[in-house]
Amino acid sequence: MSMPERVTVYEVGLRDGLQNEPAQLSTDEKLALAQALVASGIRRLEATSFVSPRWIPQLADAEMLCGRLPADPALDFGALVPNATGLERALKQPVLRTLAVFMSASESHNRKNVNRSIAESLRGFEEVIPRARDAGKCVRAYVSTVWGCPYEGRVDPQRALEIARELLRLGASEISLGDTIGIGTPGQTAAICELFLSEIPAGKLALHLHDTRGTALANALIGLQAGISTIDASVGGLGGCPYAPGASGNLATEDLVFMLQGMGVETGIDLEKLVDAGRLAERLVGRELPGRYLKAAIAERRLSEAKALTKRTDS
Amino acid sequence: MSMPERVTVYEVGLRDGLQNEPAQLSTDEKLALAQALVASGIRRLEATSFVSPRWIPQLADAEMLCGRLPADPALDFGALVPNATGLERALKQPVLRTLAVFMSASESHNRKNVNRSIAESLRGFEEVIPRARDAGKCVRAYVSTVWGCPYEGRVDPQRALEIARELLRLGASEISLGDTIGIGTPGQTAAICELFLSEIPAGKLALHLHDTRGTALANALIGLQAGISTIDASVGGLGGCPYAPGASGNLATEDLVFMLQGMGVETGIDLEKLVDAGRLAERLVGRELPGRYLKAAIAERRLSEAKALTKRTDS
Repeated sequence: MSMPERVTVYEVGLRDGLQNEPAQLSTDEKLALAQALVASGIRRLEATSFVSPRWIPQLADAEMLCGRLPADPALDFGALVPNATGLERALKQPVLRTLAVFMSASESHNRKNVNRSIAESLRGFEEVIPRARDAGKCVRAYVSTVWGCPYEGRVDPQRALEIARELLRLGASEISLGDTIGIGTPGQTAAICELFLSEIPAGKLALHLHDTRGTALANALIGLQAGISTIDASVGGLGGCPYAPGASGNLATEDLVFMLQGMGVETGIDLEKLVDAGRLAERLVGRELPGRYLKAAIAERRLSEAKALTKRTDS
Repeated sequence: MSMPERVTVYEVGLRDGLQNEPAQLSTDEKLALAQALVASGIRRLEATSFVSPRWIPQLADAEMLCGRLPADPALDFGALVPNATGLERALKQPVLRTLAVFMSASESHNRKNVNRSIAESLRGFEEVIPRARDAGKCVRAYVSTVWGCPYEGRVDPQRALEIARELLRLGASEISLGDTIGIGTPGQTAAICELFLSEIPAGKLALHLHDTRGTALANALIGLQAGISTIDASVGGLGGCPYAPGASGNLATEDLVFMLQGMGVETGIDLEKLVDAGRLAERLVGRELPGRYLKAAIAERRLSEAKALTKRTDS
């Protein structure tokens, strides 16, 4: 089976995962989670977003958090910047190596999400992306709703490709293609990957898949087989789907890493330590997370603990 | 992407799904669930097991349930028969077209599960399988722990193939290969499928995958790409993993059908009606089931209901 030898997991739990969480985490707690993720071997993490605190109160401590993240050259911390104001805030944080812009491949979703047309979003990025590049940052660009839009249904992948082309022209170094509502299936994923790879090198592409209908890992597998080697994921599957409250959100990092490890693909990540980070995430948000591997690992640990306790009681 | 044109979903929720459920369902309730599954278009269902009621009290009403299942020639109801005693009970049920025997590919699991060696299991089937065949039944044979054993770890797929060969020789018409503990990853699945397909026609093989670590659907996809066209699944992912209480169990039927539908593969199943069956299953067992598509569909329905209610209140 054709697979990349090495895969980069782009951990989005701290940003995409937390942004819809009702439980407000303190900066200390977010820092502890970031540290646990780093301890597991994750090297690329999206830490926060410089959107207005009125939009996402959960991420209102962006400056505070960035100020305390470890300044380790081996780590690539990123943050979302929605516009020029967000960019100026983000540029004051030397710890950030990656700044990420975001837009949708469908007009209605872009309007609902950022209150602009697609053309207006791209025009805004004409300033934001080069300015971020000039400041020495890598620019990641999210293109959402590539697999489907909650308002328009099917999206033309050619339209998404045109947007990606424009974002690369403006200076983005990585395009993360998003199945924002988790509606994708493997045949579609193969077609989308083939289309994008016909024009964009695999090293500039990432997949951002939501597991709303259970297909995220199967879609990731197809993307990996096509040659894409950066996959976005969220610890424990943290993060909901705003269009279907209660439904699963991001692809769970542990499930992805378990699959890759089983296939002999190098990730640099220690699954046991990743489970530690997942347990911490569960404690912090105060609920069980949907990630399957995490659930199984926690259940196994409880079983061994119970057995060890019985043994001690017996003796 | 190479995929079968048509896939048969073998629904195991009533048997594998229920057998570890703490909530005891009445025969009426099981019948209602069977009817809801049939109404969705499912044609092959494992309804129960003729094991001793002391082993699995949940399935103690096997005779009563079989006596009330619809005698529709389009439907293939199956039941598990562990031994000659179970077989004689099952043969009294004319509604059953398929009788299933089961054993493991690893010695320790077979001993723990059925208190026999692999050789003893096969010897027992020398009577059971031909007798079931002579009575006009199709025999399905489950080979468990092909991807790994909770006691022995890695299992040699060659050993599993030898067992399958023997089961076919005895008269089984279908071998369902089980990833009993949900430890499989796609590379391994590809290797297992290739090995079995080198000797056994695809039409005689099925995959029985557990989603304990999130990889069931990705593994199913690999099996489908290899040409296998019967996949076992359980409504809502009903069914736990006895080795890790709290962990996910069977591949969820809705997730599988959603993926297949998105890929243009015919299943004959109506997803909306399958969700109705899943909602019923949740009510009957009194808990939320782990299937992703089911969760998303229920959340969407609640959202539309809330919107409709707001509209009515507004006007």
